[in-house]
Amino acid sequence: MKRPTIADIARRAGVSKGAVSYALNGRPGVSEATRARILAIAKELGWRPSLAARALTGARAHAIGLVLCRPARVLGMEPFLMELISGIEAELSARSYALLLRVVSDHRAELAVHRRWWGEGRVDGAFLVDLHVDDPRVPEIEMLGMPAVVIGHPSAAGSLVPVWSDDGAAVEETVAYLAALGHRRIARVAGLPRLVHTVIRDRAFEETCRRLGVTERSIIHTDHTGTEGARATRRLLSSPDRPTAIVYDNEIMAVAGLSVAQELRIDVPSELSIVAWDDSPLSQVVRPPLTGLTRDIPAYGAHAARRLLELIDTGTAEPYEDEAPRLTPRGSTAPIG
Amino acid sequence: MKRPTIADIARRAGVSKGAVSYALNGRPGVSEATRARILAIAKELGWRPSLAARALTGARAHAIGLVLCRPARVLGMEPFLMELISGIEAELSARSYALLLRVVSDHRAELAVHRRWWGEGRVDGAFLVDLHVDDPRVPEIEMLGMPAVVIGHPSAAGSLVPVWSDDGAAVEETVAYLAALGHRRIARVAGLPRLVHTVIRDRAFEETCRRLGVTERSIIHTDHTGTEGARATRRLLSSPDRPTAIVYDNEIMAVAGLSVAQELRIDVPSELSIVAWDDSPLSQVVRPPLTGLTRDIPAYGAHAARRLLELIDTGTAEPYEDEAPRLTPRGSTAPIG
Repeated sequence: MKRPTIADIARRAGVSKGAVSYALNGRPGVSEATRARILAIAKELGWRPSLAARALTGARAHAIGLVLCRPARVLGMEPFLMELISGIEAELSARSYALLLRVVSDHRAELAVHRRWWGEGRVDGAFLVDLHVDDPRVPEIEMLGMPAVVIGHPSAAGSLVPVWSDDGAAVEETVAYLAALGHRRIARVAGLPRLVHTVIRDRAFEETCRRLGVTERSIIHTDHTGTEGARATRRLLSSPDRPTAIVYDNEIMAVAGLSVAQELRIDVPSELSIVAWDDSPLSQVVRPPLTGLTRDIPAYGAHAARRLLELIDTGTAEPYEDEAPRLTPRGSTAPIG
Repeated sequence: MKRPTIADIARRAGVSKGAVSYALNGRPGVSEATRARILAIAKELGWRPSLAARALTGARAHAIGLVLCRPARVLGMEPFLMELISGIEAELSARSYALLLRVVSDHRAELAVHRRWWGEGRVDGAFLVDLHVDDPRVPEIEMLGMPAVVIGHPSAAGSLVPVWSDDGAAVEETVAYLAALGHRRIARVAGLPRLVHTVIRDRAFEETCRRLGVTERSIIHTDHTGTEGARATRRLLSSPDRPTAIVYDNEIMAVAGLSVAQELRIDVPSELSIVAWDDSPLSQVVRPPLTGLTRDIPAYGAHAARRLLELIDTGTAEPYEDEAPRLTPRGSTAPIG
């Protein structure tokens, strides 16, 4: 089957090739209604822009876009994001690329920013982070034809280039370790349920627990804040069959959970084991220090940046699977008493 | 005295006005030696570029530069920075401005980035953060003529527009509160000694202690990490006349200090009071929750962004003093036992 061209779309839509180009590149010059109609037809025909063709035109912005869709307070408490950015920066700097950053409130606003930046030639490509299940950004960015690297699992990245690590393997390693220590009642305090990585971790948790005979298991979803992490922990530790181990989806919730245990006079680790996803200095300054899932986040960001620059330079880049986070046992986990 | 012009500099240097313009704007087209000579003459003549004239030319990049000069690991553990960026973003977004971000390793690299961005017309202005005593960036940015807002004390901002808060007043409030609770042996675990805000806080600490009869006081400087915060706390708590209260320059060090106290079986707050600079959710999830110095960091960033946009639009902007951080007492401070 022949690859559809802009001329095919123009013929079907009854508009000029110029109008199609404006619509597909997010530039002004066509009405919103026309743009929507042209995009629908392009989608129907299976049109995909040629990245290689774009790369050959040569005009570069020497900037990469990153749009974050998170509230200010949560941003501050995620060491992950700043470490990721610093890793991206290290790679971009070496190539004299800048990072163009925006913080927005929803996906619609994020897409508007990508369309404008790409349309105005202000970026040569972009990163997508915090992928949702059925994320509307993926097909829109595909249509836009902008080189993009998804920092997230390939199953949700569509035809965009994914850079990811195997969260399922890390969950499996954690649950297996806790089971080996004798734990049979394990809870998971998870993040937002619509995030792809939450779903992947949830599934791995369920499967590994089932396989290893961890009969009492539960998952509580939160918004990643310490406040909700504390509330989830209080709920878990107040139940008659309280868990003997809790795995948290980030450090701030794990620290909050540790504090709740202390408040309820439940000793960590003799009565309760705690594991935190990620492993910044915070995990090591609390008492007991937290068993964590360690990964080199700046290196992860650098890998993503290298893939994106390659995509911009050559029109193609391979998916990249980074090392899975590995369990670093510390004082917060112990055999069941 | 007449304001010196580019023609005056060109005459004195024996070069064309174009060469002077290239040199002053950081553009290529003159050798490094010539650039250095022209800058020296410009400085000698007291030349300052006209921001208003620049604003009138009208060509805008619609982007603002922010260059961070910190290592990746420290970046991740400073909620301050991400909250500041999100506040800046909120204001820039409303005006369709983007933030161009770079992470570098030293001031020389930072200045090279500013020169390039400004010279290539990629930014309309920039923020300067983490001011040092005798900061080399201030005179260089003044010479460059780029609109710039210093997020830091006016005493170190030269002719650039400062946006700051009165750290001295916050230290005074903290020490007075601890003194009123009966503390007479107070220590301060401070940040890097060459940062302007460290110097200001150190001085306010010394002065307030002296005034209120806090006879035993000490200051230990650190690199802001939990590791050094823990080490400083161990040193303080192992001394024969250990302090009954410690004030930390950030939260991660305060959390580390709390853990060291627990490790040494020194009860917080009955035997040791702890105060943390800044007050993110972290302070509230540890046990006891930390007494903190609260400020609205996103609002602070938004104020700085408004000043910078005003400076870009009109060629002038007033200095802005934000509210001083205010003491929020929680469970980590108590009267001396």
